[in-house]
Amino acid sequence: VTGAYIAVDWGTTNRRAYLVDADGRVLDTVRDDRGVLAIERSEYPGELATLRGKLGALPVIAAGMIGSTRGWVDAPYVAAPADLAGLAAARAIVPGEDVSIVPGVKLTGARSDVMRGEEVQVLGAIAAGLAPADALFCQPGTHNKWVRTEAGRIVDVSTAMTGELFALLRGNGVLKGMLDGVVADGPAFRDGIARGAGATDLTVALFEVRAAVLLDALAPEDAAAFASGVLIGADVGARDLDGRDVHLLASGPLADLYAVAIAARGGRVIAVDNQAGFLAGIHAFWELTR
Amino acid sequence: VTGAYIAVDWGTTNRRAYLVDADGRVLDTVRDDRGVLAIERSEYPGELATLRGKLGALPVIAAGMIGSTRGWVDAPYVAAPADLAGLAAARAIVPGEDVSIVPGVKLTGARSDVMRGEEVQVLGAIAAGLAPADALFCQPGTHNKWVRTEAGRIVDVSTAMTGELFALLRGNGVLKGMLDGVVADGPAFRDGIARGAGATDLTVALFEVRAAVLLDALAPEDAAAFASGVLIGADVGARDLDGRDVHLLASGPLADLYAVAIAARGGRVIAVDNQAGFLAGIHAFWELTR
Repeated sequence: VTGAYIAVDWGTTNRRAYLVDADGRVLDTVRDDRGVLAIERSEYPGELATLRGKLGALPVIAAGMIGSTRGWVDAPYVAAPADLAGLAAARAIVPGEDVSIVPGVKLTGARSDVMRGEEVQVLGAIAAGLAPADALFCQPGTHNKWVRTEAGRIVDVSTAMTGELFALLRGNGVLKGMLDGVVADGPAFRDGIARGAGATDLTVALFEVRAAVLLDALAPEDAAAFASGVLIGADVGARDLDGRDVHLLASGPLADLYAVAIAARGGRVIAVDNQAGFLAGIHAFWELTR
Repeated sequence: VTGAYIAVDWGTTNRRAYLVDADGRVLDTVRDDRGVLAIERSEYPGELATLRGKLGALPVIAAGMIGSTRGWVDAPYVAAPADLAGLAAARAIVPGEDVSIVPGVKLTGARSDVMRGEEVQVLGAIAAGLAPADALFCQPGTHNKWVRTEAGRIVDVSTAMTGELFALLRGNGVLKGMLDGVVADGPAFRDGIARGAGATDLTVALFEVRAAVLLDALAPEDAAAFASGVLIGADVGARDLDGRDVHLLASGPLADLYAVAIAARGGRVIAVDNQAGFLAGIHAFWELTR
């Protein structure tokens, strides 16, 4: 079996590189923390040489923050509605390197939003039959992305700074020292969801964490789970999910918390393998551009 | 003219001490940054001696964070509904020091909230006839307090972490470096109010600041004003102010921004001198406890 190309999910803090054959099968994988923030622009040729030394002297297709102004080569956003053909047509090619960079997707008009990397997972999941062409996707992370597709095209993107906000509040300010407990599903997390979902006074709800602990209305060890519930509840509760399928493109503890919150709001969670989505998206991209 | 007591507004980062006569007139003032965070518990007797050295060997009435667990002597919260007589009855007296500390007010039940120091301004403003006995107060700051009174008693408190959140986002994370512009009233601030008011997706609105700058939909120099508008708009817009009097207990640029936002939401802003409110509240307290 021979590799056909190297697919790289090149994010802000992490990097995952896959050696893939012409049928889309993964032959080898490299995972490390050489994300965009760890690399100077001048270091990318050396990074590529190292990756190719491990995986083979093959064409590279990379997606994610590597195509941002903080990355290697700027791959300007493609406007929604966007599909894989549109992304392929607008790819950035690094001169002399046989490296293609998948552009991100932008939403303009009444709202502004952007994504880089997540679009490959979404469109790949559809291409691979892991999700229908008309679907709502949820991609938890430091920033949670809600993505809506119609006829296999990304038509809407909403980025919620949920995880970042939790981290900021845990490390700074008046809630510092109060949010170090375990965040897991349970009564405190569910109470938080109920408080945060649909709330127009999110910053009041967050202060209540402190007040409730001070007044013995919330156990200190439950404060982190409650606060997480408030933030994830607000994130999930901002949209009408009742009776709706939500394709959850993530795994692990954070995905589990979102699954609880989505179900609490009446949504039906359908787990989708985000790595499979990414690989299917890159493979379709490769076929479109080979 | 002889001083009768020393009133101290002893907050987290600042301290204001007033020498007051028996008629409530201010004879002298000391302002400095000797807030609670700058003082170890063992240093308070020395701090008091220094203040009395400047203002006179008189009884001291102090309010604010000095009565918190981070302060000198814990003055447990009085439950709402709370009035000055209730605060006076529950005062903490520092043994051997002739120092009274005004307790804060707590809200328990469906919501938890707390305040320390602001309650003196509110109840003092009513005592001095600067505001009616049934009123809604807004007290902008790092944390904005909304306080509702009925028959001269505090019946409701909501603390919004608006200013803290702005500061956290300006200094950290994905918006860092984007929020250093001037925050002032103008089209960007008003657009922000419109986006934030009533929003159930505040963290999405905050990410839009970044996306809109990246996509040239928002001028970089307007990003701070827009983000401030989103946060203050969310704070103000979480309550129905249409046609309502809002007693704004603050002054300066932040109070001006809240005034704009309150007016944009249909509220009628009535500026109340917060120092006068504080002094009237402490004077009433002194008369109740002398």
